[in-house]
Amino acid sequence: MSLEIIPVEGIGVVSPGDDLLTILTDALRPHHPLSGDVVVVTHKIVSKAEGQVVAIEGDPEEFKQKLVESEAVSIVRRRGDLIIAETRHGFICANAGVDRSNAAPDTMILLPEDPDRSARRLKHRFDHEFGVDLAVIISDTFGRPWRRGLTDVAIGLAGMRPILDLKGTRDWSGYELDVTEISVADELASAADLVMGKASGIPTALIRGYQYEPGEGQAADLVRPPSEDLFR
Amino acid sequence: MSLEIIPVEGIGVVSPGDDLLTILTDALRPHHPLSGDVVVVTHKIVSKAEGQVVAIEGDPEEFKQKLVESEAVSIVRRRGDLIIAETRHGFICANAGVDRSNAAPDTMILLPEDPDRSARRLKHRFDHEFGVDLAVIISDTFGRPWRRGLTDVAIGLAGMRPILDLKGTRDWSGYELDVTEISVADELASAADLVMGKASGIPTALIRGYQYEPGEGQAADLVRPPSEDLFR
Repeated sequence: MSLEIIPVEGIGVVSPGDDLLTILTDALRPHHPLSGDVVVVTHKIVSKAEGQVVAIEGDPEEFKQKLVESEAVSIVRRRGDLIIAETRHGFICANAGVDRSNAAPDTMILLPEDPDRSARRLKHRFDHEFGVDLAVIISDTFGRPWRRGLTDVAIGLAGMRPILDLKGTRDWSGYELDVTEISVADELASAADLVMGKASGIPTALIRGYQYEPGEGQAADLVRPPSEDLFR
Repeated sequence: MSLEIIPVEGIGVVSPGDDLLTILTDALRPHHPLSGDVVVVTHKIVSKAEGQVVAIEGDPEEFKQKLVESEAVSIVRRRGDLIIAETRHGFICANAGVDRSNAAPDTMILLPEDPDRSARRLKHRFDHEFGVDLAVIISDTFGRPWRRGLTDVAIGLAGMRPILDLKGTRDWSGYELDVTEISVADELASAADLVMGKASGIPTALIRGYQYEPGEGQAADLVRPPSEDLFR
């Protein structure tokens, strides 16, 4: 079956204290959300609505540096201005998730306090409003070692399992698959980014036709335990 | 505009020496490929058709270990059976791309010798056959540090630029974007994987509606130069 990725327009600028649940519900309504849909929301508008925004004081670069250090629980690498840090959530990303793009002037945006909780709230409202059972992903744009460019990943999630585990699945020749864990949540976040873009002002996409595994998943499960990680 | 991801069915099992260009052209024909479409092909069928297949001799595990070492130009990390290695192409991935899933019995599959060249050949044939100008991505499934699960990435490419460079682009508040390089080729590969899957026997997808930047791109450009890489 084909998969459709629909940009959700008409959301506009979100500011601290805005009722994001209502804004998104209104923007989704024309698309008649169905059970099994996946709604992908960039974290920026979630962070802003939740007030995870900090006013810049003094020199912006110095301020950012200090903010990053206070948001980080550990610094993984540092070169010049670039800090790769671990956040409280366990994510490892540039600047511990602190970002100035699409922030209001003279402010910086932090990650949501608990992106899985934010996703659960959105799912609850959408399910109730539209009489469906769908999944929600909150996305951010992360870099990665070895490959140029950034891609979108899931930092919050509700209503689906983030990892498709193929353990025990056999390929067409009967051989058990080597690769068993696919991060479908990250693949969905990347797919959604293709219709959102960074400068287009479209912070949400609806993915229709993907057969996810429903369940009590959370994006926190995407964090590789440090003991299994060869690159810390 | 919505984006559509269409699984391309009817390709069947590909064996060394098969005429993949004709097999894929026949499978794509019912979908009436258009200019601007992106055809994503998993490398497995490309490698097989190109004869990048090795018969296992002796103990499979020992054989695999030796094969991985001969395919690698450097070993980045090693723990037990797991080898993270750099390939001749510059990709850093598990087992230097050597894989047994979806291989014929008693064989292992290597990466294509030059996946960008393979992509150019496919594009040339598709463009000629359908009278269009489209893009081709050859994908593989890679792990990454810090996050559980694997995602599909582009290892070969033709007809588009793999990276969308937003340098100088401003967000809605006029602030120049922090994030400037998006790996759209990897996002397209991940999106395509959502309709292909590892065990479904569907090795190709057609993506319609994505506005890529046409050009002489190559997936080799996705390799981060070692001098810029903090994780080697």
